[in-house]
Amino acid sequence: MSQLEGIIKSIKPVDPGLLARAQARLDSLTKPPGSLGRLEELAKQVVGLTGELSPKVWPKLVVTFAADHGVVREGVSAFPQEVTPQMVLNFLAGGAGINVLARHVGAEVWVVDVGVAHDFGRVEGLIDRKLAPGTENMAAGPAMSRELAEKSILVGVEMADKAAAQGFRALATGEMGIGNTTPASAIAAVFTGVKVEEVTGRGTGLDERGLEAKVAVIERALELNRPDPADPLDVLAKVGGLEIGAIAGLCLGGAAARIPVVVDGFISTAGALIAAKLCPDLSDYLVAAHRSVEVGHLAMLQEMGLKPLMDLDFRLGEGTGAAMGLSLVEAAVKILTEMATFESAGVSNKE
Amino acid sequence: MSQLEGIIKSIKPVDPGLLARAQARLDSLTKPPGSLGRLEELAKQVVGLTGELSPKVWPKLVVTFAADHGVVREGVSAFPQEVTPQMVLNFLAGGAGINVLARHVGAEVWVVDVGVAHDFGRVEGLIDRKLAPGTENMAAGPAMSRELAEKSILVGVEMADKAAAQGFRALATGEMGIGNTTPASAIAAVFTGVKVEEVTGRGTGLDERGLEAKVAVIERALELNRPDPADPLDVLAKVGGLEIGAIAGLCLGGAAARIPVVVDGFISTAGALIAAKLCPDLSDYLVAAHRSVEVGHLAMLQEMGLKPLMDLDFRLGEGTGAAMGLSLVEAAVKILTEMATFESAGVSNKE
Repeated sequence: MSQLEGIIKSIKPVDPGLLARAQARLDSLTKPPGSLGRLEELAKQVVGLTGELSPKVWPKLVVTFAADHGVVREGVSAFPQEVTPQMVLNFLAGGAGINVLARHVGAEVWVVDVGVAHDFGRVEGLIDRKLAPGTENMAAGPAMSRELAEKSILVGVEMADKAAAQGFRALATGEMGIGNTTPASAIAAVFTGVKVEEVTGRGTGLDERGLEAKVAVIERALELNRPDPADPLDVLAKVGGLEIGAIAGLCLGGAAARIPVVVDGFISTAGALIAAKLCPDLSDYLVAAHRSVEVGHLAMLQEMGLKPLMDLDFRLGEGTGAAMGLSLVEAAVKILTEMATFESAGVSNKE
Repeated sequence: MSQLEGIIKSIKPVDPGLLARAQARLDSLTKPPGSLGRLEELAKQVVGLTGELSPKVWPKLVVTFAADHGVVREGVSAFPQEVTPQMVLNFLAGGAGINVLARHVGAEVWVVDVGVAHDFGRVEGLIDRKLAPGTENMAAGPAMSRELAEKSILVGVEMADKAAAQGFRALATGEMGIGNTTPASAIAAVFTGVKVEEVTGRGTGLDERGLEAKVAVIERALELNRPDPADPLDVLAKVGGLEIGAIAGLCLGGAAARIPVVVDGFISTAGALIAAKLCPDLSDYLVAAHRSVEVGHLAMLQEMGLKPLMDLDFRLGEGTGAAMGLSLVEAAVKILTEMATFESAGVSNKE
C-alpha cells in the first residue's frame, strides 16, 4: 500500500452517536433550538470529525501553496507570471490580503513553494518544497506526470502532519499561482460534467475575448489529454496543478489527523474535489468557507455535498475566504462549549 | 427644535470625493480590483461615514436593549414573558449567545433595560433606563404614547453618545424581548406595504396555528391603530416597542457621531427602519449584518437600500448577527489600511 493509499484508508466516517450528543447539547443551550443556524450545524460537524464533545479548534493555520502553470503561455491570465513569486514575497512580508485577514482572525500563515517558476534562493520563512518550476502547458500535453501529481499531494499531507504535530487544531487552504483558475475550471468540468464554458470565469480580470480564449484552451486541453474522471490522480496530472495537488493533500492529511479543514474558493475547491474523489468520506472533514464569484465553484461544492458559509463576492484566493471561515468554525465551537444551558442559567424553556 | 430633531438634522450625507479616494486606495492594493468584494464596499462605506481615509473601528460595542410587550397576552410567542428578565440576567452573567460571539470578535456588550416587566432591583452591570414595565397590548390600543416612543429613541441616542464619549468606534444593535417579532412584523408591513402574512414568521418557534393567530393579531393591531407610515413616531408608538425605539435611537446617535452602526436581524432592522424613515440619509451609516430566517427581514432592508453581509440562518437576535458583522467591518478597514500596494510590494500590475 502506498503512503497515499494508507492515508486515504485511515480516514473514517464520523460517529452518528456523537452527532446526536452534540445536537442534544446544542438544544440545551439558552436559545430557541437551531436559532444560530449554520454555526450550530458547524459545531455539530466539528464534534463529529474531531471525535470530541468539547473540541478545540485553535491555534489555527492557513497553508498557502504557490505554483506556476505552463498554460499561461496560452494567455489565460490578466496578470503576468512574475506575479506568482512577487506575491510569495508579499505573503512573507505580511502585506497581502491573506496576511491581513489571517492576523484579523488570529491565524498563522505558512507559505509553501510547491512549484513556482522562479529561483528564490534562501528566503526567510518560505517553506521550500518545489517539485518543478511549474507545470507543463496542459493545452499541449499533460500538465505533469502521475508521479509528480502524487508527490504534490504528499507535500500537502506533510504540511497537515507537521501542523498537527505542532498543535494546530484547524487548517485552512490557500493558494497563489497565476493562471490557476484554468486548471481549476478543467477539473470542475471533468468531475461535474458541466460544460467548460459554464465552469469558466474571468479569473483575475479577463475581458470577453480573453474569456472565450480561456474556454477554448481548456476544451483543447481536455480533448488532447482525456483525463479519466474515475481516476482522480489522472485528472490532477493531466489538467491540474502542483498547488492544487498540495491542497488535496492538506485536506486528506487534515482529515487523517481529525482536524477540520476550511476550504477557500474556486482553486482550493478543485483541490478538495480531487481529494474527495480519492476518499469519499472526506467531505465530513471539510468546511466550505465561501461562495466565490467564479462560476463553477458551486457545482464543485455540490459535487461534494458542501454548502458555503458566506457569500462575500470574494475572488482573490490565497486563503482569504478560508481565513474568514476559520473564525466561524471557532465561533461555532465556542457557542457549543461556552454558552449557558437553560438549567444552569435558570431560564424557562419553550412552553 | 426638539432634541430628536436636532440629532436628525446633524446627520449629513457622506462626501462622494472621499469615496473616490477610498476606491483609488483599494485599487492600489496587491489584489485584482474588487476581488475582496463586500469587504471592499464596506471599507469604502466606512471611509465615507467616518470622514477618515484611515478610519478606526475599534473598540467595538454591542448595545442590547431589553423590553417587554403587552401583545404577548395574545399568545404570540412560544416562550413565556418571564424569559425576558431571565435572559437579561444571562447576558449579565456572560452565558448567552451574544456574550459568546461578542467575546469572540472582541466586542464589549452593554445591556440596557428600557422596559422589562420585572423589577430587577439593583443588579451589577445592568444599565437601568426603564421607561415602563413593557408596552401595552397593541391588539387592544396603541402600544405606547407618542411621548414614550420619543423617549425610547432618546435612550438609544444617549447610549450612542455615551459610547462615543468612551471611545467606541463601532456600534452594533441587539435586543431581547419576548414577543418582539410581532411589533417588528407590524412595522415591516406598515413601511414596506407588503401583506402582514408575508412579513410574519415563527419567531422563536410558533407552530402553524400559532403563526396564523400571530398574523391575525398583527392585522387587528394595524386596523385598530391605523399607524401613519408618513409619521415614523406614530408607527413606533402604535405598533412598536421600547427596545425597537431605543435601537432606532442608537442608529441615529451613532450616525450623528459618525460611527458605523451594524444592524442585527429582524427586530433590530425594524428599529433601524423607523430611524431611516425619520432621517433619509441614515442608510449610509448603517451596515446590515445578516439576513435573518424571519420572513419580512429582506423587505425592510431593501426599503433602506441595505444588502446583508451574511446569511447564516440566524434567528436569535440579541445582537448575535451584528457581533459577527462587527468583525467584518473591522476586517474591511484592515484590508484598506494594512495591505501593501503594488508599488510598495514591487508587484507587477495587470498587463
